[in-house]
Amino acid sequence: MTTTLNRSVLIGLIGHGVGPSLTPPMHEMEGARQGLRYLYRTIEFSPDNDPRQRLMELIRSARAFGFDGLNLTYPVKQTALSLLDEMSTSAHMVGAVNTVRWQNGRLIGHNTDVSGFRAALDDALGSEPLGRIVLIGAGGAGSAVSHAVAMRGAEHLTIVDADPHRARDLANNISALHHQAVDAASVDALPSLLPLAQGLINATPIGMADHPGSAVDANLLRPPLWVCDVVYRPVETELLLTARHRGCRTISGLGMAMHQAADAFELFTGKIADRSAMLTHLKHLVAAENSSQPVH
Amino acid sequence: MTTTLNRSVLIGLIGHGVGPSLTPPMHEMEGARQGLRYLYRTIEFSPDNDPRQRLMELIRSARAFGFDGLNLTYPVKQTALSLLDEMSTSAHMVGAVNTVRWQNGRLIGHNTDVSGFRAALDDALGSEPLGRIVLIGAGGAGSAVSHAVAMRGAEHLTIVDADPHRARDLANNISALHHQAVDAASVDALPSLLPLAQGLINATPIGMADHPGSAVDANLLRPPLWVCDVVYRPVETELLLTARHRGCRTISGLGMAMHQAADAFELFTGKIADRSAMLTHLKHLVAAENSSQPVH
Repeated sequence: MTTTLNRSVLIGLIGHGVGPSLTPPMHEMEGARQGLRYLYRTIEFSPDNDPRQRLMELIRSARAFGFDGLNLTYPVKQTALSLLDEMSTSAHMVGAVNTVRWQNGRLIGHNTDVSGFRAALDDALGSEPLGRIVLIGAGGAGSAVSHAVAMRGAEHLTIVDADPHRARDLANNISALHHQAVDAASVDALPSLLPLAQGLINATPIGMADHPGSAVDANLLRPPLWVCDVVYRPVETELLLTARHRGCRTISGLGMAMHQAADAFELFTGKIADRSAMLTHLKHLVAAENSSQPVH
Repeated sequence: MTTTLNRSVLIGLIGHGVGPSLTPPMHEMEGARQGLRYLYRTIEFSPDNDPRQRLMELIRSARAFGFDGLNLTYPVKQTALSLLDEMSTSAHMVGAVNTVRWQNGRLIGHNTDVSGFRAALDDALGSEPLGRIVLIGAGGAGSAVSHAVAMRGAEHLTIVDADPHRARDLANNISALHHQAVDAASVDALPSLLPLAQGLINATPIGMADHPGSAVDANLLRPPLWVCDVVYRPVETELLLTARHRGCRTISGLGMAMHQAADAFELFTGKIADRSAMLTHLKHLVAAENSSQPVH
């Protein structure tokens, strides 16, 4: 017989509204490139009275059904913490996991949003110092971004959020865990903050197809500021388009989206992901999506 | 990009003690031959207080987890009946399903044990009339075999079981559903039945690795009787070895095992299975198993 059975890998993504995620095709294509029989399924999480119990059942069932690992996304990244037997340093710091797998029967949690964002920064900036950074958005994405920034080390980090308590809590958390100069500020402070900053990072959903607009006034975008968006659908958010038009370097959300998937792929398989091929594929996926759907 | 994502198929097998089943590799290899990304996982069924409720949850979860179809085996083949939206004629006749899939949101049940055994008989006997048949074993396998025999049509069918009620119930059921001359007999009647029979079929577990022995006394095995065993692990049961030694034609359980899997594969995928390749593969699987494990 000439046909042989390659290694099989079965992964799921648990979260709410996960149907249109591009993470499944990213993983499956990389698995196919590496000659694996790699299936990645989405598992819809319907919030109910006891989300922790529900998530526990889903994770337990996934194991019984032969899943090799899971990605977790909104709204279960924090819920999962108390269900783990062990977690990585970054998952512990951020207080959220997006990747779990079983090892010798123990459930181990990881956070590849942090490592993924850090890798995307490294791609874009190389060894360039981060300087003074303004981060907008102190939610789940902002939390991962701020830990990644602090792990790389910035001259200063200011966290801005429409909810000042949330910004301050995250700043306090970063301060307690990292050797990082950090503070919180209100949205009103952006005009005074940005002229002194080297980098601006948007970690709010503003700019997504269903949250159109920009979190920052166009007049505040001036070189040498570089501008990074965590949003990657669309790749060209209003923020990035405006920033580039005004002469700023821009960093799209594609890098983080690819790297978080690549890091998870490596955890699931123990193989080295082809990140360049994954990025090319993700660009095709996003382009195909844009050409087949009207942009809102 | 040169790599493309072939169609993915995710199938599960629900039952008790399904870990060592050879059905998963049979399906996965045929899927690989056909260029599918085909994963087949075993899902252990632990009987509890409410097996119907438990099976319902497993089937519902399997769908939520992205399974495309399921095989069912002991002890859930009958339990599943009341959970179906629709079932095939053979599943309805036998009162058992071993294959379910979703079609437009509806759960459809099939029985490929029946079609599989019939195909195995056809392979072995061609257009030869069945003549007078003695079937030993009126359990789940015996039920599928007796319906397959009746659908092909035998001159006469006698069902023998250590439990005379079970034999009579099955005979009554066959009689009610098919134009088939059928009766039940006790094990003591074998010496008078077999000299008049053209075919003997064993559908008891006797002859399996952990049920050694033979259901029939060697002296009763004489040409022109052909002897068929549903057991296929080992392929060479004591019954078949003895029968061949005494000059009888023999039909092993491999054919039924392969055809039931091939029929399910075709239901799951809509593609035509390569049955000859599947049979060769199954022979290799059984041989590899025998060479790596002591025979009990």
